[in-house]
Amino acid sequence: MDIKDFKNLIEKYILEYFDAKPEDLKNYLEPMLYSMKVGGKRIRPILLLLTYNLYKEKYEEALPFALSMEMIHTYSLIHDDLPSMDDDDLRRGMPTNHKKFGEARAILAGDGLLNESMIIMFNQCMSLEERKVKASKLIAEAAGAEGMILGQIIDIESEDKQVSEEMLLKMHKNKTGQLIKASILSGAILGEATEKELETLSDYGEKIGLAFQVKDDILDVIGDEKAAGKSLSDKDNLKSNFITMYGLEKCKEYCEKLTNECIELLRQLDKNVDLLIELTEFLLKRNY
Amino acid sequence: MDIKDFKNLIEKYILEYFDAKPEDLKNYLEPMLYSMKVGGKRIRPILLLLTYNLYKEKYEEALPFALSMEMIHTYSLIHDDLPSMDDDDLRRGMPTNHKKFGEARAILAGDGLLNESMIIMFNQCMSLEERKVKASKLIAEAAGAEGMILGQIIDIESEDKQVSEEMLLKMHKNKTGQLIKASILSGAILGEATEKELETLSDYGEKIGLAFQVKDDILDVIGDEKAAGKSLSDKDNLKSNFITMYGLEKCKEYCEKLTNECIELLRQLDKNVDLLIELTEFLLKRNY
Repeated sequence: MDIKDFKNLIEKYILEYFDAKPEDLKNYLEPMLYSMKVGGKRIRPILLLLTYNLYKEKYEEALPFALSMEMIHTYSLIHDDLPSMDDDDLRRGMPTNHKKFGEARAILAGDGLLNESMIIMFNQCMSLEERKVKASKLIAEAAGAEGMILGQIIDIESEDKQVSEEMLLKMHKNKTGQLIKASILSGAILGEATEKELETLSDYGEKIGLAFQVKDDILDVIGDEKAAGKSLSDKDNLKSNFITMYGLEKCKEYCEKLTNECIELLRQLDKNVDLLIELTEFLLKRNY
Repeated sequence: MDIKDFKNLIEKYILEYFDAKPEDLKNYLEPMLYSMKVGGKRIRPILLLLTYNLYKEKYEEALPFALSMEMIHTYSLIHDDLPSMDDDDLRRGMPTNHKKFGEARAILAGDGLLNESMIIMFNQCMSLEERKVKASKLIAEAAGAEGMILGQIIDIESEDKQVSEEMLLKMHKNKTGQLIKASILSGAILGEATEKELETLSDYGEKIGLAFQVKDDILDVIGDEKAAGKSLSDKDNLKSNFITMYGLEKCKEYCEKLTNECIELLRQLDKNVDLLIELTEFLLKRNY
């Protein structure tokens, strides 16, 4: 299997999951499914499956966790796009959830996805396997008010402000970094990686999360709207980001340096890390 | 211990929980704590603890679940009060979360509380005790898109509309009923009630949830704003409710009938149900 196969696998699993819901509920669940289907790179669930696959051969038992992760990511985008937050009309080239279904339904679609992700994980915990409870707890913590949501709060408070380098790093480390790192670590926990390996993967997770965000900021400057599938708003231009902080050239160098460090860390694992290296390099080279 | 002691216990536990958070995060968590502190009747966590206490003597191991339940209830109120939802300025006599902290922070406070409630339960699941995972799963399902959130979606879709009796019941059964029933059942599962007892408590849960909602509708008509601590908006008057459906007198009779049926069900359990009966009667007689 290559990376594209994993992406297809996840997208098929998303559709199957919602398809298995009772017919009389499907209309109510449509806003949730809409944003889950809109697409995206599926980086988090792919990272989870690839890391799991370093240790175990199949992927079936990791799939529900990968789905949970993508649901959490998707809910955060729906709420982030709301008028009182980033006020975005387009996401991945399509109307944002609230543009399509109205604000109230969009808020509830986000709530519903967050809640559903937890139901999926509690269902997995019913087997009473410690690694599954540990992975679930780690994912929930990464998503919470001391993880991703903290990053979102800092982001809101930083609006129209020049913020310190420290605060910018703290914001991104939480807002984007936490879920990316949790995808990697939960995959590894499910695969029964050793403590030592988890440490290495934790470093990898931090660096790839940071590289991902620096690259996003680079794309916001040099990418065009079409490739990004979202409107590059004036609001974004007022915000502090890595480009306003370090300048474009430094950012490109930094991103490359982080990517190399990621690859070095992966090689330390003494496992077949080819696909993870490929994904790491793709994230550096991507133009969307 | 009487009911007031349980209420105090929960309120103390809420404060302790947030007080134990890292100092540098407290400012970010303030909107979450604000709504948790505003008060209310604490019906759900009290129900959970009282039901647990039918079977086990202490309450310490049920407290985290009671807290989770109150967090889920509180997040749902924060999101319900938002301008795009019910657009309420007051809740329990205090400014609603978005009036106090702005919409963006309020949305994130709600997200944070829902997420935190799940973290608390995953932490409990780390003991790998089946009853704890079962209780957590039941609570998450009751809160989700096929439970409380479904009720909220139906509520939104029913706005400014005359709805059928069937739809009104479906809305309330989910919007209010699910969390109330889940409080009772999760307490009983933690207490290791038998399947037969769970069935009886499930019936009790459905009936008390319905009685609670009918009483709420009665209070919306005859209660004054001061006692309710919220503004009785014009918007509410356009909505179908039990009063517009059956008339005030029928509703009072119905509420009393349900309460009596609840008490009968409790007596079938052959346990010390005094406090649960007291709470059930209080919910009928309350004027807020």
